[in-house]
Amino acid sequence: MILHPILGLAFFLLILSVTVQGAVIEFNWTVNYLRWAPDCVDKLVIAINEGFPGPTINVTEGDTIKVNVLNKLPTEGIVIHWHGMHQKGTPWADGTAFVSQCPIGPGEEFLYEFVAARVGTYFYHGHHGMQRAAGFYGALNVHPRNRTVEPFKYDKEYTILLNDWWHKSVHEQEYNLLADSFKWVGEPQSLLIGGRGAYNCSKVPNFPGASSDTGDFVKCNSSSPQCVPFSITVDPGKTYRLRISSVASLAALNFILEGHVMTVVEVDGHYVKPVVVDNLDVYSGESFSVLFTADQDPSRNYWAGVNVRARLPSTPTGVAVLSYNPNDPGMLPTTPRPVSPAWNDFALSMSKAKQYVAHPDFKEPLPQKATDRHLFLLNLQNTWKNGRRWSANNISFVPTSTPILAAYKYNLMGEAPASPPDSYPTDYNISAPPPFPEANEGHAAYEFNLGDVVDVIIQNANSLTASNSEIHPWHLHGHDFWLLGYGNGKFNVSTDYATMDTSQAPRRNTVPVFPWGWTVIRFVADNPGLWPFHCHIEPHLHMGMGVIFGEGLNQLPDMPKRTLGCGLTKDNSNIGI
Amino acid sequence: MILHPILGLAFFLLILSVTVQGAVIEFNWTVNYLRWAPDCVDKLVIAINEGFPGPTINVTEGDTIKVNVLNKLPTEGIVIHWHGMHQKGTPWADGTAFVSQCPIGPGEEFLYEFVAARVGTYFYHGHHGMQRAAGFYGALNVHPRNRTVEPFKYDKEYTILLNDWWHKSVHEQEYNLLADSFKWVGEPQSLLIGGRGAYNCSKVPNFPGASSDTGDFVKCNSSSPQCVPFSITVDPGKTYRLRISSVASLAALNFILEGHVMTVVEVDGHYVKPVVVDNLDVYSGESFSVLFTADQDPSRNYWAGVNVRARLPSTPTGVAVLSYNPNDPGMLPTTPRPVSPAWNDFALSMSKAKQYVAHPDFKEPLPQKATDRHLFLLNLQNTWKNGRRWSANNISFVPTSTPILAAYKYNLMGEAPASPPDSYPTDYNISAPPPFPEANEGHAAYEFNLGDVVDVIIQNANSLTASNSEIHPWHLHGHDFWLLGYGNGKFNVSTDYATMDTSQAPRRNTVPVFPWGWTVIRFVADNPGLWPFHCHIEPHLHMGMGVIFGEGLNQLPDMPKRTLGCGLTKDNSNIGI
Repeated sequence: MILHPILGLAFFLLILSVTVQGAVIEFNWTVNYLRWAPDCVDKLVIAINEGFPGPTINVTEGDTIKVNVLNKLPTEGIVIHWHGMHQKGTPWADGTAFVSQCPIGPGEEFLYEFVAARVGTYFYHGHHGMQRAAGFYGALNVHPRNRTVEPFKYDKEYTILLNDWWHKSVHEQEYNLLADSFKWVGEPQSLLIGGRGAYNCSKVPNFPGASSDTGDFVKCNSSSPQCVPFSITVDPGKTYRLRISSVASLAALNFILEGHVMTVVEVDGHYVKPVVVDNLDVYSGESFSVLFTADQDPSRNYWAGVNVRARLPSTPTGVAVLSYNPNDPGMLPTTPRPVSPAWNDFALSMSKAKQYVAHPDFKEPLPQKATDRHLFLLNLQNTWKNGRRWSANNISFVPTSTPILAAYKYNLMGEAPASPPDSYPTDYNISAPPPFPEANEGHAAYEFNLGDVVDVIIQNANSLTASNSEIHPWHLHGHDFWLLGYGNGKFNVSTDYATMDTSQAPRRNTVPVFPWGWTVIRFVADNPGLWPFHCHIEPHLHMGMGVIFGEGLNQLPDMPKRTLGCGLTKDNSNIGI
Repeated sequence: MILHPILGLAFFLLILSVTVQGAVIEFNWTVNYLRWAPDCVDKLVIAINEGFPGPTINVTEGDTIKVNVLNKLPTEGIVIHWHGMHQKGTPWADGTAFVSQCPIGPGEEFLYEFVAARVGTYFYHGHHGMQRAAGFYGALNVHPRNRTVEPFKYDKEYTILLNDWWHKSVHEQEYNLLADSFKWVGEPQSLLIGGRGAYNCSKVPNFPGASSDTGDFVKCNSSSPQCVPFSITVDPGKTYRLRISSVASLAALNFILEGHVMTVVEVDGHYVKPVVVDNLDVYSGESFSVLFTADQDPSRNYWAGVNVRARLPSTPTGVAVLSYNPNDPGMLPTTPRPVSPAWNDFALSMSKAKQYVAHPDFKEPLPQKATDRHLFLLNLQNTWKNGRRWSANNISFVPTSTPILAAYKYNLMGEAPASPPDSYPTDYNISAPPPFPEANEGHAAYEFNLGDVVDVIIQNANSLTASNSEIHPWHLHGHDFWLLGYGNGKFNVSTDYATMDTSQAPRRNTVPVFPWGWTVIRFVADNPGLWPFHCHIEPHLHMGMGVIFGEGLNQLPDMPKRTLGCGLTKDNSNIGI
């Protein structure tokens, strides 16, 4: 068959156009409970398509991702947040319960449809209650259309989610955290690499007559195939890319490849100037790509290990196996499990975080010179009635039953809500517990004009406990931001800006603030929508540690009807649609 | 002040009218999780206003009950079913998820408003997933406007809910029951009287180093005030009414007052010919009033006890204390705990059930002589894929995400669904496991003309296990029915009707069917609505053992918008409202 030359050209252009616009990649997911033993202890997890963790999505930049979700949980609603996706034009697909949509109810189907606009290592997870901590998560990798443009080379890649793990149900955790009789979740029982850990079954009570008839309290089976360590299998001499993200509920994690150095090349979907490290701090919500070469003695296997930092650890090292072909991946190393730097060496933590700067050869847009708005957000733990809350500027976020995106789009906010405060008392003493009597609850958004350049100064402070301040990783939906700098003590507008080198500011979607320290980010409010900015620690978010950024509120796109049906959106006549 | 005679009469008539129409009794309930130890073992329960069980409602016949419910569970929807209320004109207030309404979502408020039309002993409970088994229930007593009309006298009354109790979360139970790897809930760990039981803490593992950091598996505290036995305090010589209902998830219970006979005077809100009993079988969903006189040696206290019948028991007797004033209610009897009749004496079970007939002096309407429709419902356990289901006529009920009441009211059922079958093969062998390859799933209603007189013949059969058939208590929403009779073996239309004495047929809302036996009920389809008729055993209902009766489908009242918002009712333009 010979094509007419003009038609042939048209055909070629059509193909090209499809290629450039990206393909449409569809998934059908059923969400159900699943009895699973990620750390050898039986637990009910929230699973996708009967698997844990959820399936890894691999697409190419520019592709449209369509995920049709069927909720088969008997009584719980669900949503799925696509961590790191900007959702430009699709703020309703951001997957945050009562912010971007109503929860998907039992028996309901819901179609997420959005563009994977940028390359990078990302993930997805439940964003309703503390469902992420119930195991409701998976990885999302966006590959470049042409791999040769990447500023590094490797032979093969592995995707690894890191997590901490509790045996208590998230329902119990959710209750304990907000109850008047506040009860903290405590340290995790296990650490998971690729969804696998190993609890010490000898710590689980083995009592006579245990059976389903007498309580069936806890089952631990150290030989369960579900808790066989994850294996990273390598060929000697080859180079590997590990895509590592933390979906941790709480812990600041430190990742080590025994005997191998790693080169960090990507953080939160952005190439960084390569940094060689012995170990990698990974805060919840962060993503990294590291390269390593299988250049060690191939006759044995090695540990990959993960430890808790930034809190006094009481959880054993979580391990995977770095296995050299043709060794049996089940051949566990006889060496000690990897040890991480001291948990409370916060100076080291900050210096490690400061290593990551924009890749010099892959300069992305530099941050604007001028800022339209400064937000000073004081990270605050405080009492609330007889319980505890976390807050920004003493406003603890509490969702309503109406998605805030719909509330702004369809004028359901009632009387114009008081804007949350842009700052906090200038004489606030960050070294002492809060002087305010108790937290306030709220859910109003910070409102920005479209195109505003916004600086957020996250200011850490002392918690309710004397001489205590914690690391909080803050995550911004709908955007990447420039990370302008970290510092210790109380931020000083007059002097601290001068210390920042904006010429190599990396772009990120998640960034830690260190104890009694500050972190400054800058972003452009160019994405019409309502975007959470919150601490990615699941219990802290559940206790209210987050704010909402409203952008282009008069340009919000219509919400598909499937996103509505709860709270004030039960009645479409409210909405005029 | 002297009233003008005409105005005075008008005022009097106004008062009278208010009295006759009944008062409006309002409640504000917040539903939350609560850590509670009903049997001394810590568990998360679904609680109302921070209490367990839920508050007892006491109203007078004809009163309007308004309950405003605020759902504070983080991710679960809720509904509340008012067991025994007919909901005439308010089918949307029946409180069954995906039948009469959408679940009340997290953060949402919902107003139930209905008339307590008839006197009697009733209760309420969650009817979404297996939330009743999570402790989401309470008592509802409707008192006569004039107590002297009751055919018995007593000095004081107590309201007692009986229940069985598991330590596993209902989420785990729900999963296990419908999983391909079907796992039965097993026998209860404890039996509760008035929300209190006592697990043997010595059976709970006590392992070294147990703390919140190492798993915090199970806490059992035998001296917790939450599991102090319920006490029935009496004055010597006086007569008491006990209002007893079973909200059991599974167990057929037998209630005993040590040393005291009881006179049964009410069943399911209807006075019955008094029956003196030593012990009382109470199936899940049934309500009784019994009278007893405190006529025993007042120097000591006595046990009230509850045991499992109809299944091989492995649960200790649940106890309360019958305490004679001025004894200390904490003075436990030193006598053995009450023993119930043999669990598998099913002939005794049926003969006990047959004792209850309509009170001769308080004749309510007799059943119609002629019947418009016969439904033969075969109780069937069967396989489904790799799991198990319960069914009627091999159709296992599976809810959709759209309330079936809205689906019929607003024509959202799609193409006219196939009606479920009115019968089953006449040669069906009830003594053997089912010959069908597997169950079918469905959710269509049986449709009746308004005013139809309907006979339902509930036919029990062998389960999947050879030589096994179980008692199932069937409960009808929206109605009381006449209980025409019980029998053994396969029902024979030609001969068995002749054995029934309809002249004293009692009215009921719940009735058991005995192993390999049949039960026949008659009711008038006079209540426009969609009404579940189902086995009241929570795991059986969860596994599909129920049907829906549709009555007066062209006369269904409008549904308040607050009942909608899920499934196909997300979009009000579907509904034309």
